[in-house]
Order: sequence, then structure tokens, then C-alpha cells
Amino acid sequence: MALVVQKYGGSSVADAEGIKRVAKRIAATRRAGNDVVVVVSAMGDTTDELLDLAQQVTPLPPQRELDILLTAGERISMSLLAMAINNLGVKAKSFTGQQAGVITDAVHGKARIVDVVPHRIRETVERGQVAIVAGFQGVTESTNDVTTLGRGGSDTTAVALAAGLDADVCEIYTDVDGVFTADPRIVPAARKISRITYEEMLELAASGAKVLALRSVEYGRRYGVPIHVRSSFSAKDGTFVSADAYGLVAAATLDPTDPEAPEELVMEAPIISGVAHDRSEAKITVVGVPDVPGTAARIFEVVAGSGANIDMIVQNVSVARTGLTDISFTLPEGDGTVAMTALTAIQSEIGFDSLQYDDQIGKLSLVGAGMKSHPGVSAKLFGALRDTGINIEMISTSEIRISVVTRADDLDDAVRAVHSAFDLDAADSEAVVYGGTGR
Amino acid sequence: MALVVQKYGGSSVADAEGIKRVAKRIAATRRAGNDVVVVVSAMGDTTDELLDLAQQVTPLPPQRELDILLTAGERISMSLLAMAINNLGVKAKSFTGQQAGVITDAVHGKARIVDVVPHRIRETVERGQVAIVAGFQGVTESTNDVTTLGRGGSDTTAVALAAGLDADVCEIYTDVDGVFTADPRIVPAARKISRITYEEMLELAASGAKVLALRSVEYGRRYGVPIHVRSSFSAKDGTFVSADAYGLVAAATLDPTDPEAPEELVMEAPIISGVAHDRSEAKITVVGVPDVPGTAARIFEVVAGSGANIDMIVQNVSVARTGLTDISFTLPEGDGTVAMTALTAIQSEIGFDSLQYDDQIGKLSLVGAGMKSHPGVSAKLFGALRDTGINIEMISTSEIRISVVTRADDLDDAVRAVHSAFDLDAADSEAVVYGGTGR
Repeated sequence: MALVVQKYGGSSVADAEGIKRVAKRIAATRRAGNDVVVVVSAMGDTTDELLDLAQQVTPLPPQRELDILLTAGERISMSLLAMAINNLGVKAKSFTGQQAGVITDAVHGKARIVDVVPHRIRETVERGQVAIVAGFQGVTESTNDVTTLGRGGSDTTAVALAAGLDADVCEIYTDVDGVFTADPRIVPAARKISRITYEEMLELAASGAKVLALRSVEYGRRYGVPIHVRSSFSAKDGTFVSADAYGLVAAATLDPTDPEAPEELVMEAPIISGVAHDRSEAKITVVGVPDVPGTAARIFEVVAGSGANIDMIVQNVSVARTGLTDISFTLPEGDGTVAMTALTAIQSEIGFDSLQYDDQIGKLSLVGAGMKSHPGVSAKLFGALRDTGINIEMISTSEIRISVVTRADDLDDAVRAVHSAFDLDAADSEAVVYGGTGR
Repeated sequence: MALVVQKYGGSSVADAEGIKRVAKRIAATRRAGNDVVVVVSAMGDTTDELLDLAQQVTPLPPQRELDILLTAGERISMSLLAMAINNLGVKAKSFTGQQAGVITDAVHGKARIVDVVPHRIRETVERGQVAIVAGFQGVTESTNDVTTLGRGGSDTTAVALAAGLDADVCEIYTDVDGVFTADPRIVPAARKISRITYEEMLELAASGAKVLALRSVEYGRRYGVPIHVRSSFSAKDGTFVSADAYGLVAAATLDPTDPEAPEELVMEAPIISGVAHDRSEAKITVVGVPDVPGTAARIFEVVAGSGANIDMIVQNVSVARTGLTDISFTLPEGDGTVAMTALTAIQSEIGFDSLQYDDQIGKLSLVGAGMKSHPGVSAKLFGALRDTGINIEMISTSEIRISVVTRADDLDDAVRAVHSAFDLDAADSEAVVYGGTGR
């Protein structure tokens, strides 16, 4: 008998039919003898509809009030889901973030969880009942005000609750079969990844793979919560995310009757986990920057001060005869305006020539813990792109990731070429039948 | 500087435009120097839409979960209203029933308020901010579970908060100008009542006048909260409800610059407040009941046990030669099925002949504290109906009310005849311009 935390996203509970389908799955998990805690998001487009209502009332809603408004969405989905489970003869109760003991800081709109004290959830499962918890929300300890956790909040609620309850596994249900070696819409031969480490999953999530929120992976790594990303439309195993993907944790959660299991367990960890891509960034180039100490520091101080998130940075070598250099960096497209505005304001102070803004870029990231000990990975990556005739504009690396920036139009070809070069293509093209987004 | 509690119903905040209009009114009240606490219902049809969703999921939703679901409605309206007020430059914060300290018993779906501890509301107004409170909801003290107060819940929240805060007045905003001497849709000459006692208002509310919920009037009477029923579309005074409608309370809240004021203040209380009507009841007649002690008690024990609410009861005199009698009673139409089922089950036990069900009845009630000391009121009432050719089927009286049951088709004529007979018709027909429902 295991304690299982399950998280269902908004698309899984978009309407009454979806809620009833999810309720059946939860009831079956409970009837199989497990203790079950469920974290649920707002139904379908509820959050967007509430945001739209707020916009009709005021262009700048106070964040505290916006949080109260948005948390109505999970209140609706969680109570409906509890009703649907009770209707199947399994006792279930729903709890707000506050009732579930999700304590956050007071940063409305993107609060961080500071503690989880799930007394009522524990009591509920000890009575043999299913506890349904509102995702995405918490409460401040000092003022008892309602907060929301921002993007990926429900994933984070689920992993944090699993940590607080010392759950055996945190299952993240989604509309695809798990984490893939690449987006199956771009690479039809992409394979589902059976097991992956937190570190690799972090790099994939940070590089554009959208199946699991970055913050929830960070939380899972910190507290050692085994995460299982799987489809709410199928009973098949998805992707297990854990500290040692090929060691004991995976073995413990692996079904020994699975014919693929023994082979995968003895298999060495592959060098590469997958190829992620990201089309949501833009590139700013500061042209003709005087090559004197401190200017780069000043530029990034100003950009950071504008609230923009900087990703990759490249500084070209100084052109000897002029004493000038160019500095390029990438950032989320949505941050482009504030960063350009902030930089324009210091043009005369820094003395650069001009600014260039380019939102027609794509980023490809190759991720794998194995590349640490395997030389030649970057050479093979660059070679694959060269053979496909794709120009590399920027490069950035970590111990288990290599990212390159290309033209946006070249990105799909680049992903396919690299996926193939590292032998990630499935023998058969099973992945296409998933039909999922892979994001 | 007064402390004013204002309550706005769902039709006043049905959409973004309504919310902005109400926000303007609240901001103006605050800018006039008052401390303002606002109680708000769910937007328009939100509650019905949520109930519909629940029905799609299960035919018998658990009441605890239904309460969580329904309270999402006020969460949405209260946060949007707080945003709209902030947008006008007046600071406002919204609070759930729990945050406002509305403590109830644990009877989900129709909880009763057991205490109001509005610390946070008091703090908020002391800081000069407007406090917006979710109507219709509270929290149990022991389990911290969310409850709803049932029909008329938001009116009750407003009056209870006004009592807990020792407010100067509780303003109930509605879509008509106040309480009328009769429904203006039936009696175009109906007049707005300026002042009325709790007792008269209770009788009117219980007799079908829907402008103010019965429970809120009971609460107001118990704690002596001055209630002002008025239109959210006009700045005119509406109807003041208080312990001594023509004494000090009314004088204190009356605007001395109002040209009508002095006259009304010296005027004696009129005999009759108004004529209420109710088309929502049905009549059950138990035919041929053996006229032996205990049978009537047994019949009403069984009907009460079925959950039906009994209103008027009439037992005809026993027909001497048979030793049989007929017992008739009225009840809400919605309770008809359970009552008829319960009675059918005891037919052989009691030995009555048959049951008759009649939903084509109407009830007219004449209400006025003055009738206590004025003989001849009932004679005048019966005379007016006789002159109009209307048959009276049942009669019931209290110290300040006479109710009669007629054919449903005769009800409008009956209301007009009685309204006119008691000189309630306005000199001019100003009331028609209100165009409201008067219910």
C-alpha cells in the first residue's frame, strides 16, 4: 500500500466529462489499495476567463485581489472532482491551499512555498478518504491572505505536498505519454524517455520542454521526491524522474512484469537524454561597445534592473583597430520592450553605437548526464548542423547541456538532424501514435 | 462620520459594467467621509451555473463540496469589486466569510450564523480602506470548513456584520426603490413605504414580499440594526426598517433638508403598511378524516417529518352525521411531492378518504402594526373582496396580519381591491415610474 500524490492539469478536467473520467482513475487507484492525494488545476480556460473579467474592470488589478479571483478556479474544479469521486462510492473531500497547509511568502502572483503542514490531508487519508487539494494556491502565514504560485504552480503544489507527506511517488498527469527525446511534432521518430535524472529534467525544462514545470523539478530534486510524468489517457508507464534514474528508485517503481524492464535496468545510462527546443526567445545585440572594463557589467546590471530575464550571453572579441566590441544576449520575447527601453536610456552613458533586436531566433539544447564523461559530443553536434547547412549564431554550455542559437526557420531541421546524429530515433516510429505535443 | 454596511445583490454586479457602477457608488460613500463595509453576492447567474455544473457531475453532490463550489461565486465578485474600487483611487480589500469572521454552525447548505468576529474588517476600515466581504458564506469554528447560509444569505451576512461592527446603518441595495405597499406590477398606484417596523417587515417578507430576506429581518430585529432598503440605480431614500419606525431611529437617519421629512415625522403610524401576495404555495386537503383526538397531530407530524414547511391550516367543523372532517393546509409548491407521498403512506393508519392537491391558489396578506388597535380591519378586508366577487377559501391571522387564500386567477384583482379599500393608493401614480418588480 503506497501513498500516491496525483496531479491533473486543466485540460484533463476541462468539462464535466473530463472530471468524471479523472474521478474514475482516482477511484481505481484508491480501490487498488493506495492512499491517494490529488492536486487539481482550474478547469480548461477558467483562469484566462477570470483574467479577462479583471481586465474589463481595471487595467492594473491589485495582485492581492487578482490572487483571490484566480483561486476561485481551483475551488470550482476541486469541489466538482470530489463530488464525482463520491458519486463512484469512494469517499473524497476537497481542500483549499490554506486548508491543506500550503504556506507561502507574501509575493502575490508568484509566491514561493515556504512550508507545507498537511495535517488535515494526512488525517483524511488515514480515514481511508481521498484528499483533493487545490493546486496553484497557498496562504501567507502572517496575514492569512490567499496567494498564487504563478506558472507551473499546480505541479509545484503536487511535488511539495508529496515531499511534506513523504509520498512514495508524485504522478504528474498530462495529455502526452511522458517526456520525449524531442518534440514528436517535429521529430516523428522521437522516443519516450523511461527514466531521467532531476538534473537532466531541469536542463530540458529550462531549455523549452514544457511537459513539467521547472520549479516542480527543482523542488523534487531538493526533497528527493520521485516524479512520474504520465498520460491521463493511458495506463502505460510514462517517464520517471529521480536522483539516480537507473538505480534503486527506478527499480522500485518499475513493474517487473513489464517485458522491457530487465533490459532497461541493466542498460547503461545513455549519453544523451534528449533534444529540447525553444522558439520563445529574442536576441538583443549592443553594437559598438567601447571595450573597457566594467561596461559589460553595467549593461547587464541595467537589463536585470528592468526586470528582464537574461539567458545566453556572447561577447565577440574586440576588433583591434577600433577598440569596439559587440555584446549579444537572449531573453524571453515578452521582456524585449523593457530591456530595449532600459538600454536606450544608457546609450550616451555607455557610448555604444546602436541596438539590434531580433525575435527570429530558435534555440536547440542537447541534454544528457552522459556527456560529462564523453568527449566529442559538441563536435558531433556542430558537425550535424554543418552537414545540414545550418549556421550557429550563439553557443552556451553547462556540464550536461549544450545550447545553440540558430535562425528560427532552421530550428526544426536542426532538431531532426541532431536527434538522428545521436541515435535517438526510435527503431520503429511508435512515438507518432502518441499524437501528443511533447511540450 | 458614520459606519455604513452596504449590500449589493447579484443583479447589481451581473457584469463588469455593473461592478464598475457599484464601485462608483461605494467610492462616493467613502469620499463623503463614511467608513464603508460592503457585502456582495455572486455575479448574476453564477450560482445557477455552478449548480448546473454540479448536476452534470453527480445527481446528489455532498453538501460540503457543494458549499465549496458555490462560494467560488462570491470570491469572483468580491475580488473584481475590490479591483474596480481601487481603480477609482479608493483603497479596498476583499475578504472571504472566513477572513471576515463569519462563524456558522456545520449545517452545510443552510448554515446559521453563530458568531461574527470581524477583527480584520475593523482593522481595514480603521486604516481608511473599504472592506468587501463575500456574502452568503461562513466557516465552521471546529473544522474550519466552508459553509453557505442558504436563501437570502447575503442579506443576512450584511445585517450580521452591521450588528457585529455596531454600524450606524445597513443599506440593502436592490433594483427597486424600496418596500412598496403592494407589488407595483399589480397595483400601479402602490406607494413606497418610507418607514416600517421589523415586525411589519417580517410579516410582509413571510407573506411573499421578496425585497428583503426574512432571516435578515429577524437578525436585524434581534440586534436592533437599522436597515435601509434602497435602489442601486437612484440616490433617493428607500425604506427604513427599525424597531420604532416613527421614533428616534428614523429621525436620526432622516435627512432634515428633505421637504417631506417633517410631515412624515409628526404623522401617526398608518394602520396598514401594505398588501403582500404569494403565488408560490399549494393547498393539500385531507378529505374524510375521522374526527377523533390525535389524528390532526399525527397528520402534521408526518408532514413535518417529510421535510415540508406548513403555512396555513384550516380544519372544517365536523359534519355531524358522518363524524368525518376535512383538514386543509398550504405549503410551498416545491414541498408538494414529499408531503403527498408521506400522507399516502399513512392513509390506512388514519383512515381518511382521499387527498386533494391544488396548486392554483393565491394568498393575500394585509400587514400593519396599526391593526392591533383598530377593530374592523378584517371586516373591511372581507367586504372589499365580497364587493369584487372574490371567494375566500382560507383565513389566517396574527396580531398584525390577516391572510386569505383565493383562486390564483383572482389574486391580482384581490390585491387591487384591498389596496384601494385601505386608502393605500398614491394620489398620483408615481410608483409606476419605478418600473421595478416590487418583490
